[in-house]
Amino acid sequence: MARVGLILSGCGVYDGSEIHEAVLTMLALDRAGAETVIMAPDKPQMHVVDHTTGNATKQKRNVLVEAARIARGDIVDVKTVRASELDAVILPGGYGAAKNLSTFATDGDQCKVDEDVQSLLREMHAEGKPIGALCIAPAVIAGIFGEELHPEITIGNDADTVAALESMGASHFEAGVTEVVIDQHNKIITTPCYMLPARISDIATGAEKAVHALLAMAGETAGATT
Amino acid sequence: MARVGLILSGCGVYDGSEIHEAVLTMLALDRAGAETVIMAPDKPQMHVVDHTTGNATKQKRNVLVEAARIARGDIVDVKTVRASELDAVILPGGYGAAKNLSTFATDGDQCKVDEDVQSLLREMHAEGKPIGALCIAPAVIAGIFGEELHPEITIGNDADTVAALESMGASHFEAGVTEVVIDQHNKIITTPCYMLPARISDIATGAEKAVHALLAMAGETAGATT
Repeated sequence: MARVGLILSGCGVYDGSEIHEAVLTMLALDRAGAETVIMAPDKPQMHVVDHTTGNATKQKRNVLVEAARIARGDIVDVKTVRASELDAVILPGGYGAAKNLSTFATDGDQCKVDEDVQSLLREMHAEGKPIGALCIAPAVIAGIFGEELHPEITIGNDADTVAALESMGASHFEAGVTEVVIDQHNKIITTPCYMLPARISDIATGAEKAVHALLAMAGETAGATT
Repeated sequence: MARVGLILSGCGVYDGSEIHEAVLTMLALDRAGAETVIMAPDKPQMHVVDHTTGNATKQKRNVLVEAARIARGDIVDVKTVRASELDAVILPGGYGAAKNLSTFATDGDQCKVDEDVQSLLREMHAEGKPIGALCIAPAVIAGIFGEELHPEITIGNDADTVAALESMGASHFEAGVTEVVIDQHNKIITTPCYMLPARISDIATGAEKAVHALLAMAGETAGATT
């Protein structure tokens, strides 16, 4: 049974993990027979957004504590997880990936990635294990590996977002809402999800395809190292 | 295209809507070609629970504002919705159904149901339209209709919970985690979801079966009135 890390960034599209993408990734992993290890950084959110208005509020919330809502409490601090425990890792989207896992929302191509997230993803890559990223989460991949690996990724079709990722060194490929871009060499899998206009059933399809590609690659990885 | 109301009670299993049940109901509705109208009461939550510890905190949150996270902002106050706009309605579980939609968590068989939720569900029943309830949400059904209709429902296998629902007038039928109990006469559909030990893929199956039964019944209803 493959063991797959799921990195969350809060709970809600505007200040945390996009909930549909997170849940439908968990569903695809469970249906494929994988074990899911849910994690998030234990730190304050960049801010808290009222999802009825889209406006920031004065509340303070913690990324791990809010992400625990999606995980039904079964969650660990990302800094306690080692790549050796996992066969693959996947990041759903939501602005939390650009606000809490990285500073992409405010700093664009000058963004910094959370150190613990960066450390785990660097370990995964060093061990030849695949990494998946949905929606806006490829910004985290570009923030870590852009200049070094020039990963082939998709992040929808917003011109400024695409330009920022290319400025960080990534090669962008436009893909449909249920299509997956696979960088076989770097073992990076991306799909646009809600970065494009989408129905929730499209998200289910995209997440499932990304998970299947991730597990196929993790299987190859495991095969190669035994 | 059927138009189905989805009544949320917050965002997170311990103080609001169970997120997997809510999202997987939305997915099943979308895949079945139904339009979903997401709603919640605009009022304070009973309390806010830290989902990493299970303990109540001193925070204050609003049911509608938190439920908006699951709805990506596309949500309305339940009191603005009339049964005439809908073909069916469904309630996911999570303790929010027993804390915010009703007082079942604290008052058991003496519970009161939120007036706006009660009003909409009474209208739906009066118009012969079906009502679905997942997990602990059948407590809301029993709270409104127990003595009057003696609805046939399932709510898992916890003896005290079953006894409370029977004390409110409901007839309880034990069902497996992916099984659905259909009260054809009263047009009420229930399934246990996380009231029983379950994987997320079981929740997807149970929610899909409940949605299909609901839409089939709504189709019959529409057929009967035209």
